[in-house]
Amino acid sequence: MIAAQSSLPADALTYEKAGVNYDQVDPIKLLAQRSAKATVANLAQHGLSEIAASRGESAYVLDIGHAYLASIVECLGTKVLVADAVYRATGKSFYGAIAQDTIAMAVNDLITVGATPLVVQAYWAGGSSDWFADTARATDLINGWKAACDVCGVSWGGGETPALAGVVAEGTIDLAASCVGLVQPKSRLSLGDKLAPGNAIVLLASSGIHANGVSLARKLSERLPQGYNTPVGADGTGQAFGEAILAPTVLYSPVTEALAEAGVAVNYCVNVTGHGWRKLLRHTSEMTYRIHTIPTVPPVLSFMQREAKLDNTEAYGTLNMGAGFALFVEAKDAERTAEIARGCGIAAWVAGSVEAGPKQAIIEPIGVTYSADDLKLR
Amino acid sequence: MIAAQSSLPADALTYEKAGVNYDQVDPIKLLAQRSAKATVANLAQHGLSEIAASRGESAYVLDIGHAYLASIVECLGTKVLVADAVYRATGKSFYGAIAQDTIAMAVNDLITVGATPLVVQAYWAGGSSDWFADTARATDLINGWKAACDVCGVSWGGGETPALAGVVAEGTIDLAASCVGLVQPKSRLSLGDKLAPGNAIVLLASSGIHANGVSLARKLSERLPQGYNTPVGADGTGQAFGEAILAPTVLYSPVTEALAEAGVAVNYCVNVTGHGWRKLLRHTSEMTYRIHTIPTVPPVLSFMQREAKLDNTEAYGTLNMGAGFALFVEAKDAERTAEIARGCGIAAWVAGSVEAGPKQAIIEPIGVTYSADDLKLR
Repeated sequence: MIAAQSSLPADALTYEKAGVNYDQVDPIKLLAQRSAKATVANLAQHGLSEIAASRGESAYVLDIGHAYLASIVECLGTKVLVADAVYRATGKSFYGAIAQDTIAMAVNDLITVGATPLVVQAYWAGGSSDWFADTARATDLINGWKAACDVCGVSWGGGETPALAGVVAEGTIDLAASCVGLVQPKSRLSLGDKLAPGNAIVLLASSGIHANGVSLARKLSERLPQGYNTPVGADGTGQAFGEAILAPTVLYSPVTEALAEAGVAVNYCVNVTGHGWRKLLRHTSEMTYRIHTIPTVPPVLSFMQREAKLDNTEAYGTLNMGAGFALFVEAKDAERTAEIARGCGIAAWVAGSVEAGPKQAIIEPIGVTYSADDLKLR
Repeated sequence: MIAAQSSLPADALTYEKAGVNYDQVDPIKLLAQRSAKATVANLAQHGLSEIAASRGESAYVLDIGHAYLASIVECLGTKVLVADAVYRATGKSFYGAIAQDTIAMAVNDLITVGATPLVVQAYWAGGSSDWFADTARATDLINGWKAACDVCGVSWGGGETPALAGVVAEGTIDLAASCVGLVQPKSRLSLGDKLAPGNAIVLLASSGIHANGVSLARKLSERLPQGYNTPVGADGTGQAFGEAILAPTVLYSPVTEALAEAGVAVNYCVNVTGHGWRKLLRHTSEMTYRIHTIPTVPPVLSFMQREAKLDNTEAYGTLNMGAGFALFVEAKDAERTAEIARGCGIAAWVAGSVEAGPKQAIIEPIGVTYSADDLKLR
């Protein structure tokens, strides 16, 4: 449960109750991070150096002279289990949609450092060779993957399609993607050294749950009499919950590329994934992020907040609540940034600003404040 | 079963009988490859181009101007299940060893194109948060991963450690690695355009099964009265089968880097993984590969051949049989290449040569010939 001002009913379904225990994972994550950091010494033999500030950020950055090289590996996570359940129940394949999600997980992280994504590699580990024997499903996955590559302007370089009986659960597939890109010119590097009071915060619309908060959604579906079939509208109409969850994650690289082309400098980016709006506190510096405008909440997220009985502190601290990506730009560029995003077909809001002050995110319209204690990623 | 001259006893345990059906996976693999290839059009907007010959090779190569950029994602596969079984039975952790295997799967493929590996990203997807709660095991994994990065001279950039209950089998972990490197100077590109009759074939020693043929080994262990506890020596002594399987894969990048430093040009490389020595036929061109010298077979592989009742055609066509990597160099450089490898602590043999002729690999010491029909990777 998030510290802040949250006081939830006893039957509220929080992320912790949904079986995601960040505390248990984190100490080993920290050990891995320290060990990883120590390997930087290996770069000297190649005459290369890393950008140390990229460690702990969403993508790792190497200085290769004429450009920076950014790389990442990301996975879809458990969203595939929702696609599996809906496929079993309705015969509708959303594997093309979750292919886009998987690429979004990698690309939306890679672009936060200012990189142009260039190559994606596919990692599709089936629970058995049989996974690929359902050619309709496999074809949907492939087509969705290719379409997402086309949207992001990346070359799909190849990948792995192992059959891992005993490692991956029978009947499902573990989807992940690696992505490589270049920060070029080097001035596009957006690791936040230019992030400063006075900067504007522009939020880009999400399409729904994206690929975070899925464990909560799955747990919630078990509570619902109609499960994934439950309509998400407050009036009992609307899209079925399962299908609403499977709206594919928005790909934000067209926006960051369009901004670069228009000469708009981006000081920092946040991909709003796990930890929801607490991610606004991601940068290490001590600053206050004041939000005066919040996006319309997608119906599937309103439904989840309502049905899981989450107050705003918990909902905005866990889910993206309509904001999938945050851009931190000079105040003079704020409106233009939002317009360029809209030109890419993505709703955008000049939502707030960066101020001098303690590390906190003040979400004025809902009266919620997250402090540094609410986000411990490093 | 491999076509060639194989005639096996009825109770022989072939790769096909071990449940690995390449035929079932391949048509979708081909569809994925065609779709992937179509995305090359996306590179034009960045003023970049791919090296088309790298598609279907072991790593994907992009021309970024001053250098080539190579990238890859690879997984450990089911070898983790052997580590799990041995850990349960003996309490001995081989997770550091399989960490090295995972990096080897990526790095040994990446270097085949002539790239210097620079960055590795970790993908460790546990069946639950609990996987990481066993800190001794997790620490061994981390330490092995770091040590392998140090051997390969790469920076461990970061990665993902998701807990994927329901996707990854409870109690185990799906391990994969992505790797990025540069081919610099560009003349190091070793995609085989200079591969020609008269070239020498230098084989580098394997440490055992590496991470291919593991399904066969697992199936075999079920046949053995003592299972993984069975000594691998012909006289009933020697290392236990399970632990022998878990000898970590040799990391070959120190050899390719040392060759570059010594000015020895490599025309082509083959990472001997799945398909065993049939991989010698990997390059698309029509040539004959004649082998006159074969390495000593590691005890674990002799044991597997004996116990699974494989003839040489099946054994060399499935397992590495002591040769983990093949370098194709100018004849004048052959001895020096082997010496440089030995200087890196890796046994090496000037094992044969490339000849004009039909596409076949003639393994003279064992009287086995593989033809183009025996290897269909593309």
